[in-house]
Amino acid sequence: MRKPLKLKNRIYIAASASVAGRDEAAGPLGGLFDVTDTEGNRFGEDTWEKAESAMQRMATDEALRRAGYRADEIDALFAGDLLDQCVGSNYAHSGSGIPYLGLYGACSTAAEGMILAALACEAGLGVCAAVTSSHFCTAERQFRFPLEYGGQRTPTSQWTVTGAGAFILSRERRGGGVLPRITEVMAGRIVDRGISDLSNMGAAMAPAAADTLLRYFGAGADPSDFDLIITGDLGREGTDILLDLCAASDLDIAPRHADCGLMIYDGCSDKHAGGSGCGCSAAVMAADVLVKVREGALKNVLFLGTGALMSPVTVNQGSTIPGIAHLVRIAGEEG
Amino acid sequence: MRKPLKLKNRIYIAASASVAGRDEAAGPLGGLFDVTDTEGNRFGEDTWEKAESAMQRMATDEALRRAGYRADEIDALFAGDLLDQCVGSNYAHSGSGIPYLGLYGACSTAAEGMILAALACEAGLGVCAAVTSSHFCTAERQFRFPLEYGGQRTPTSQWTVTGAGAFILSRERRGGGVLPRITEVMAGRIVDRGISDLSNMGAAMAPAAADTLLRYFGAGADPSDFDLIITGDLGREGTDILLDLCAASDLDIAPRHADCGLMIYDGCSDKHAGGSGCGCSAAVMAADVLVKVREGALKNVLFLGTGALMSPVTVNQGSTIPGIAHLVRIAGEEG
Repeated sequence: MRKPLKLKNRIYIAASASVAGRDEAAGPLGGLFDVTDTEGNRFGEDTWEKAESAMQRMATDEALRRAGYRADEIDALFAGDLLDQCVGSNYAHSGSGIPYLGLYGACSTAAEGMILAALACEAGLGVCAAVTSSHFCTAERQFRFPLEYGGQRTPTSQWTVTGAGAFILSRERRGGGVLPRITEVMAGRIVDRGISDLSNMGAAMAPAAADTLLRYFGAGADPSDFDLIITGDLGREGTDILLDLCAASDLDIAPRHADCGLMIYDGCSDKHAGGSGCGCSAAVMAADVLVKVREGALKNVLFLGTGALMSPVTVNQGSTIPGIAHLVRIAGEEG
Repeated sequence: MRKPLKLKNRIYIAASASVAGRDEAAGPLGGLFDVTDTEGNRFGEDTWEKAESAMQRMATDEALRRAGYRADEIDALFAGDLLDQCVGSNYAHSGSGIPYLGLYGACSTAAEGMILAALACEAGLGVCAAVTSSHFCTAERQFRFPLEYGGQRTPTSQWTVTGAGAFILSRERRGGGVLPRITEVMAGRIVDRGISDLSNMGAAMAPAAADTLLRYFGAGADPSDFDLIITGDLGREGTDILLDLCAASDLDIAPRHADCGLMIYDGCSDKHAGGSGCGCSAAVMAADVLVKVREGALKNVLFLGTGALMSPVTVNQGSTIPGIAHLVRIAGEEG
């Protein structure tokens, strides 16, 4: 994928489903999520880690139900999350009986999962799933501070979304109406521009997003081909940097650009530069963007999953934060 | 991959390369590794994490050199490791310019990477790489005890291999002679039989290995089709359990079975139940098994990468240890 890979087969996102927490349910997209826990974000579990696994299971079950597939019809499930050793995903799908391929793409996991599920369908599998999640309480403790600490957050900091999304990809078209199709994919390269501030992920990820977009549009496409160019979780700071970097290379995506991290919370809550986490783009794509494609309100969408690939250990050792951005082109197809 | 997926295209392992540390270089396969650090296992770096990244880079560079490809000819690189957020891999390939897809498959990563690189080639990419590593000093500190603690190890405990392996997969055949081909792949399912002892990974992984083998041989193949059925890192304890589980289902793999974790150290060093870690199967496959396929000494090999999918956090919270095993069928093809 030095170049964009156009898929030869018709590969559909047969269904998607979203799960979200209390703050996300209170935000501008709150009414769109399929499952929410507006109480304590525990989803019936006694640890935050188990809650995150439960969210992935709920999203997967709901997406399967909507797509009309049983779990034992899924050829492979691609999943990952932010937790050490990706335990949110591992425990979610333990015992499901679905062949499982674990990913680590940080916040880009929704896009990475869609790419790999699409490649697997292209290689001959019939039905694949891509699932991911994040949870504020597991991520904040692991990456930053104990939850009880209540520290001040800087203006560039983002808020890890409590959310999950599941996507069922299939080569078979079931039913009429408009269905989203994945038509083209491109994996990102790792880009590190020397950012070392764990509270400024947007700045660490934006150069990778620009790298992928410039490679993609350099290969022939034009921003005007799209109704929407949507990044995963650059937030306010990262979005500004991305638009600047693109403009400096004479690429104007601003009129069509949106960012899941800026869509999921309103501007006045305590979320600073916006939402982040694997669950941010997964929940927004599943609950909002793909629904609009199915309704015909969006026809051509470029989805760019963005991720920051550091760990607290490497940053404490003085390393800077590498970013990555994976690209998925989605088109609505009439039934 | 509810069933084994036979690949339609001819997909070759064009080259592989291995990197190993001091204890591995002193073991029975010591003379076979391509790059070793027989001094301090630091590979020229000042932290263990950076040493692990350096090992992945060295393995990748050497495999590319042998395959005769430049880095900018690689369409996608699949990599993962045991470290939190897979930083061994992320930092290894930052700035390489190679499109990157991060994996988390624990010790099964070498097999998972081969499966996904093969699927990506099957879907139309020309050249892909699969790379993984582990390092005793990063893993021991992260999963068990501070290195300086010097605690007693139990008889079932395994020793994380300091090693890395890189595999270049291509649809093009360059040159004559015998080349290993990946002919069939099957992703594993997550199996959890209730093991909670962080010093007995073999017992946690063996049921998953049995699950994959029984599914595979239930679909038509026979153990006698293979010169070698090789598991990644079950060690002594896990191997005994696997052979028992298979025998209980009337599947006799014992005459053809070997385990990378039992091959990499001699029986008299302080390695207890054997080697483990992503680097264990990667280094043994790259340095020994695939070389024997190229030499014609092995013609049909079934490689089963085994992994344990827990984290210290989940085990400390009382969760048990899920296992997984991914299967790759390799055949030597005359040029």
